[in-house]
This record gives sequence, C-alpha cells and structure tokens, in this order.
Amino acid sequence: MADHPAITERDIERVEPGQRRRDRDQLVVEAPIELRARGEALVVVMRTPGNDVELARGLLYAEGVIRDTSEAKAVREADSDSLRPTEVGNVVEVDLPIERVRERWPSRALYSSSSCGVCGKTAITELETRADPVRSDLTVQRDVVCALPSRLRAAQAVFSATGGLHAAGAFSQDGSPLAVREDVGRHNAVDKLVGWALAAGRLPATDTILCVSGRLSFEIVQKAVVAGFPVVAAVSAPSSMAVDLAERFRVTLCGFVRGARLNIYSHSTRIS
Amino acid sequence: MADHPAITERDIERVEPGQRRRDRDQLVVEAPIELRARGEALVVVMRTPGNDVELARGLLYAEGVIRDTSEAKAVREADSDSLRPTEVGNVVEVDLPIERVRERWPSRALYSSSSCGVCGKTAITELETRADPVRSDLTVQRDVVCALPSRLRAAQAVFSATGGLHAAGAFSQDGSPLAVREDVGRHNAVDKLVGWALAAGRLPATDTILCVSGRLSFEIVQKAVVAGFPVVAAVSAPSSMAVDLAERFRVTLCGFVRGARLNIYSHSTRIS
Repeated sequence: MADHPAITERDIERVEPGQRRRDRDQLVVEAPIELRARGEALVVVMRTPGNDVELARGLLYAEGVIRDTSEAKAVREADSDSLRPTEVGNVVEVDLPIERVRERWPSRALYSSSSCGVCGKTAITELETRADPVRSDLTVQRDVVCALPSRLRAAQAVFSATGGLHAAGAFSQDGSPLAVREDVGRHNAVDKLVGWALAAGRLPATDTILCVSGRLSFEIVQKAVVAGFPVVAAVSAPSSMAVDLAERFRVTLCGFVRGARLNIYSHSTRIS
Repeated sequence: MADHPAITERDIERVEPGQRRRDRDQLVVEAPIELRARGEALVVVMRTPGNDVELARGLLYAEGVIRDTSEAKAVREADSDSLRPTEVGNVVEVDLPIERVRERWPSRALYSSSSCGVCGKTAITELETRADPVRSDLTVQRDVVCALPSRLRAAQAVFSATGGLHAAGAFSQDGSPLAVREDVGRHNAVDKLVGWALAAGRLPATDTILCVSGRLSFEIVQKAVVAGFPVVAAVSAPSSMAVDLAERFRVTLCGFVRGARLNIYSHSTRIS
C-alpha cells in the first residue's frame, strides 16, 4: 500500500501506557483538485487522490451540469502539457462551453465552503499571508489529552439524544472544559467555538486546547491556526494536509486519542 | 430535550432481531442559514440551529473577513421585521460594507460545496425542478441491508491502512458489491461512486443500493436522489433534512445499521 496515491507516511510519536516512541504512520492523503471548463476555473475541492475523473463527473451530475453518459465523456483528466508541474494530476478538464456550465449551475456562486486552494502550496501560502505560526509556551500532560474525548462527549447534550452530531470543545491546560459546541457539520462546530472565543475576547487562544470529534482535515487545522490554538486533539485520524499545516504553523496535532493512547503528529514537545 | 431547537422527532420503523415496530426517533436538525452583508447574500451554510451568530463569527474570522472582537459585534441575528416568515431564525446579518467583505474574502467565489439552499423549502423546491421521485420496485431483505456495512468496510483498502477515510458503495439487490469508493470527504466518496455509475451507463441506479459510512446529511441524500438510488443505508444517524428529502423523493432511508438492527426512516416497504 506504500505507493498507493491515497496513502503517505509521516514520522510520529506514539504514546502508549508506559512508553513513548518515534514511529512511522500511514496517513490518508488530502489534496485539492480543480475543475476547469476549457481552462476556466470552476471549483476547487479537497479530496483524496484517486478516481478523480469519477469525482468530477459525480459532482457535476449531482449539480445538473452534466446530465447523461454522453456528456460525462466531456469530463477528463487535463492534459499534463497544459499544466504547471504542481498542477499535474490535480486538474480535471470539463470540455463544455463555460456559458452552458454557468447556466446549469447558477447556484454555485452562492454556496461555499471555506477550504483549500488551487494546490496545497497555494493554500498554505494563502494562509501565510494572514496567519502567523502559533506562538505559545503551553504544555499539556498526556493524561490531560487522553481525558479530553470523554469530557467532550459528556458535554454533548444533543448527541446523546440523536447520535448525529460532531463536537468541538475548548479546554484549559488542566483539561477543564471552557465551552463545547455541536453541529451536524464538523467545521461548523469549530466555527461556533471560535465565534464564542472571539466574542469572549479569548483570541488568540494560545493557552487553550481544541478537541474535536471525528477526523482532522486541513480545514479544521486551518481554523485552529487562525484562532491560535497551540494544541489540537481528535479521536480519529488526521489527513496528510492537516499534518503539513500543523507542522508549518507550529500546532501540536494529536490523533487517535483513545484510552491511554495517542499519536502526536507535529510539535510533540508541548505534550509532557 | 424535545423542545431543543437542534432536535426534532420523526416516525420510524425499528427493526430488531425477531421484531419490527413503529416508533418515534429523535433526529438532529439540519437546516440552512444565510449570511448577509447589509442585505446582500454572502453564503449559505447547512448547520444545526443554535449558536448561529457564533457560527457566523467563527466562519468569518477563519476567512479573515472579521479580524477582532470589535468587528465581531457587526455580526448579529437579523432583525425579524426585515425577513420573510420562513427566513426568521435562519439569517445572520453582517453589518459591514459589502466592498470590504469582498476585498477580504476574494477566495469565496471559487470555493464551493454542493449543498443546500436559502431555506429548506427552497432547497427541496430547487431539486424538484431537476429530479423526480425515485421510481423503483426494488425490495431488499433486511438481512442484506444489515450485511452492507461490513461488506463496505471489507472493500476499503485505504481505510485499513490509515483509519482516515469515508466510503460509499453500490450494491446489488442480493448485497453483492458493484463498486466501492473512498475519500476523506463523505460527499466525495458518493460523487466518485456516482461518477463511476454514470460512465458505466448504470444511471438512474434504480436497481441498486447505496451504502455509506458515517452519517446521512441532506447533501448525501440529494446526490442519491439525482442518481436514482431507491435504498440508502448508513451506519450512523440521518439528519432531519435528509429524512425530509428521502420522504419527498421516495427514497428508503436506513440508519444505524448495526449488527442485526436498523432504523427505517422513510418508504419502509422496500425492506422485506
């Protein structure tokens, strides 16, 4: 699996009862893909590489931009000769007149998610123009990190009733919950928490730990960077781009926080 | 919790070993919210109601549109007098000049997710203009549905290595896997699968079951409707809007498919 385009490896620190050691871990790749109609940018989507043309076809079909198997043939891998080196493998060409795409997809301009960029480098470069690496001397004991997921869950009132919600929580250095917010959308839960912290005058959140349910995507770490959280913990796996961003912006990223175990993906010295 | 704005109730059929009975179930509410800058639409986001102003502040802060606690005060619940009845509670006003918002958020136009609409009614109405209710006589045995999650997982090559991926699979009436696609994004996995089915001439997928890992959002069901899947199954919970859409477009929605149990949220006669 090591040469699978959806998998990459990173150095991590694996924390287990009684020991802490350096190790290699396999991560799922997250990277942006751009859809272009005859050269004009339509949309950028974060995805795991593989079946990219299918992804573009399925997305455009769901939106009504392409409507049958014959139109699906207009969607294909972009010719590498027309691309810059960093774009190769990350652009899908839609061979339809831009006017027809616009006519069939009028809603696109209004709907938005707050992710990514045309390529990983662009997204990180863009963030560099408006966010600094997190400066914080915060250190957190491993036992405190390990206790966060259960404290997060305990504060999830709506999840208990429905089983259907993500959560994001802000915790102090000793693991006390400061605020927990829930939403069907992972990103929304973090936005709500950051919105709370902003109005409370708590940003940058350089003395605070962010704990989220579910996985760590690029977008979650991006929001954490802008808000200044030095430590981010999650029950599940981070993506490659989440780790790259955390590394670059000096965020300590903890994943697979389960029981007495966790993996540290970046800036591990903050966990004592 | 029954009057909590994030929770609603629906009639379901609860399938358990040896019995099948009508019941009520609590669902998490999913509904769109619109951000407006002095009356002009900025973005529509699907979210769980509650802490909406925090959500808007956090999103705009992450994007660099508002930059400090003082600017956060420009973000507030819209005055109900200025709204249509269906909009009340679902609009947040950003009291900043639209020019400043545009200047600070130039990337917004390019980034897109394929969700929602200005209000639930609009989103469903919009879909009615381009998709019909799913017409299919497909029936599926409950044991077949119950076996899908483990078959989906078994086909997830990348998940096994990284623990970081969502999956979507197409299955025949007897539960045989036809195709399985993986991605960090839930929606992307479904898009890849639909893109495969489209190119294979298998749409509308009226003889096929869709099984997804994770939760069932409005957006997943929307994609299933357009592709014509009559039965959609998931390991976790559906949102209120996912159920509403499935009801309206004659999709059989199965959630919490775990072991020998499942909940059927709509058009239960297809499960025998």
